Amino acid sequence: MNATIITIGDEILIGQIVDTNSAFISRCLNDAGITVIEKLSVGDQRQEIVRALDHSLLRNEVVILTGGLGPTKDDLTKKTLADYFDMTLVRDEQVYRMVEQMLSLRGIEFNALNKEQALVPDGCTVLPNRNGTAPGMWFERDGHVVVSLPGVPFEMKALMQEEVMPRLKKRFALHANVHRTIITFGLAESVLAETIAPWENALPAFLHLAYLPSPSAIRLRLSAYDTDRETAERAINDQFAALEKLIGPYIVGWEDGTTVQESVASLLKERRKTVAVAESCTGGAIASRFTALPGASAYFLCGVVSYSNEAKIALLGVDPETLARHGAVSREVAEQMAEGVRRIAGADYAVATTGIAGPTGGSPEKPVGTVWIAVATPEKTIARKMVYGKLREQNIERASASAINMLRLILLDRFDTPTNESIL
Amino acid sequence: MNATIITIGDEILIGQIVDTNSAFISRCLNDAGITVIEKLSVGDQRQEIVRALDHSLLRNEVVILTGGLGPTKDDLTKKTLADYFDMTLVRDEQVYRMVEQMLSLRGIEFNALNKEQALVPDGCTVLPNRNGTAPGMWFERDGHVVVSLPGVPFEMKALMQEEVMPRLKKRFALHANVHRTIITFGLAESVLAETIAPWENALPAFLHLAYLPSPSAIRLRLSAYDTDRETAERAINDQFAALEKLIGPYIVGWEDGTTVQESVASLLKERRKTVAVAESCTGGAIASRFTALPGASAYFLCGVVSYSNEAKIALLGVDPETLARHGAVSREVAEQMAEGVRRIAGADYAVATTGIAGPTGGSPEKPVGTVWIAVATPEKTIARKMVYGKLREQNIERASASAINMLRLILLDRFDTPTNESIL
Repeated sequence: MNATIITIGDEILIGQIVDTNSAFISRCLNDAGITVIEKLSVGDQRQEIVRALDHSLLRNEVVILTGGLGPTKDDLTKKTLADYFDMTLVRDEQVYRMVEQMLSLRGIEFNALNKEQALVPDGCTVLPNRNGTAPGMWFERDGHVVVSLPGVPFEMKALMQEEVMPRLKKRFALHANVHRTIITFGLAESVLAETIAPWENALPAFLHLAYLPSPSAIRLRLSAYDTDRETAERAINDQFAALEKLIGPYIVGWEDGTTVQESVASLLKERRKTVAVAESCTGGAIASRFTALPGASAYFLCGVVSYSNEAKIALLGVDPETLARHGAVSREVAEQMAEGVRRIAGADYAVATTGIAGPTGGSPEKPVGTVWIAVATPEKTIARKMVYGKLREQNIERASASAINMLRLILLDRFDTPTNESIL
Repeated sequence: MNATIITIGDEILIGQIVDTNSAFISRCLNDAGITVIEKLSVGDQRQEIVRALDHSLLRNEVVILTGGLGPTKDDLTKKTLADYFDMTLVRDEQVYRMVEQMLSLRGIEFNALNKEQALVPDGCTVLPNRNGTAPGMWFERDGHVVVSLPGVPFEMKALMQEEVMPRLKKRFALHANVHRTIITFGLAESVLAETIAPWENALPAFLHLAYLPSPSAIRLRLSAYDTDRETAERAINDQFAALEKLIGPYIVGWEDGTTVQESVASLLKERRKTVAVAESCTGGAIASRFTALPGASAYFLCGVVSYSNEAKIALLGVDPETLARHGAVSREVAEQMAEGVRRIAGADYAVATTGIAGPTGGSPEKPVGTVWIAVATPEKTIARKMVYGKLREQNIERASASAINMLRLILLDRFDTPTNESIL
């Protein structure tokens, strides 16, 4: 069962926004066993929308569109769909009442433009939108289903989960798509591929392997499409068990969407332990990662972004002499930062970073990309030097992920796993 | 001049990653006057890549592909392109040496898979990649240009800026695409559209208006494609000047891709002033936004993520009695946090947030989404209450942006612009 996703809006084509809708829709469809074979983004123009529909209906049973349903002139999706399916726009009384009520609650006038939101093509099934004024619409023709959803992410998400997925599951007899991903650290992609080549070559044909490299980890994904879920899951688990024998020490986790900070959060909550962070070069990125998780206050006590030397001394109690002797980017300062914030916060664990994120500020002994990471625990303080590249954004991301992963490995008592320098 | 962007990778189609590459590429092309008329995402399959190329070359002079250039078996783009253009893969000595050197610096073995990275189609122009092992490739046929870039974002970005754009500008006589966006706050989309209808209806045909609603603002964009830059800019400025007469009080800023933290950074650097931040509900997101900018140390002194009450007292000097009497989410605590971090850091300005990000933790008087923001200046401390929605991620994002924007408006002496509650 194949699907195409079409996102509509000039803002996507000029790069003014990043399209996150299609990734969400993909995950929903995939989970239900519908394979997305293509995504298209087109502008707010009638002929572009028609062209994308023609193209997509050639080989897909399901087409999901988002965007272009607002009340303003630049939004053309609804009229275009009505014409495409030879339908007439008529007022839907339920939508009319919902929009009227929603606007009155928010103190917004129910004007002519909003009234138009209640017009829908007469042959479609209306999917009520309780978060906005544009309803979703479900069209069927010749065994194909075309669904049009608003582009505002939280409106689209609610409609996908509450209306579209239940209807698709009822409408089609679906098989499963199964994906499972493991996370490896410590081997470069080419070395990893060479190491696991015998295993990879012996994979059964219905399992697809993908390598997903990122600055701080390489993930391996096995996928089975349009299959029986139980059989596929068993096969994937067997294969990953075999893989673990080959590269066990380099496998640091499973991914079911779990991020490294989520793993640490689970470990800390299980053990009723707390953490504090002291950040120089990561500038708040580590604290942000933890506090973005709901319920972070159960284990996250505080963070200090000690960007200036004065802040390192005043807020964390770093010794001015150590700073003068070793410089801010040093093992000693990283350790004192971690110990300082652990003490001040009264936390069980602390993580600290100090480094040169770039693009300038490096020296021959401490080039841009040099980062010291320290973890302080009730028993000891451990520091490690990383040498990343020249790009500021990347260095911040890698140092943040590595620092959190270092705490994770220490919590799991697995910090001794041998890895390359700069890969943690 | 039209272009299509093709992103390649199963991880995009199953929704495992959000494609940010195509937005970046779109912006580069648009800035140079090349109009992206479509984006396509396809899987790592030869026939899908070929189909996407056939489809795109029908009506585009330029096609940019990303992804599928890694050293592993699942990456098929290079071989597919070689066949598509009837070329043979041959070793490129320069790439070979670059890869060898890069790996040796990182202590990674130069194995057979990495050596394959130096094979390129014999008729293409190689675009050297100094950040990774996969070179970019530039193909020409029948007046069309097809460029293949690695999918790793920072490798792709450097190649776009340093290799692809200069070559495209040299290869084609380009006109300009001009986009300019104003930010409005305080009017619902339908009301805004009704208010500016006379202005919108009188726009010249070559100017395209788009409405971009988001949780905290509605942006209006005027675009002119394939035109003379100066004429278009003058026309857009004239139109926006006329618009200002209609809805002046609701226009709060211009957007030229500049983020709100970049505006604040420029203002602070110009005036040689410094800032410190104290964050509770935003959890380091404000510090992160500032420190992600190169050169942040010129004006950013420190941040404190005082998640626990103890941290608010110990690190920021918030009065325990104030906390007990008014609660952590209150005007008084926000003000003391801002004043405390300003004093401790010795900064000119300070920003503080305290609120309930959700999804739980609310009460009837202080529902989830309630955030107090305070800004302390050398003269005064100003606080403002915002009431956002139920979604944690959005609340953190809105509160961070609003807090930085509040500082911006204060720096510009424009904080009095009348807006609805919760819209800043």
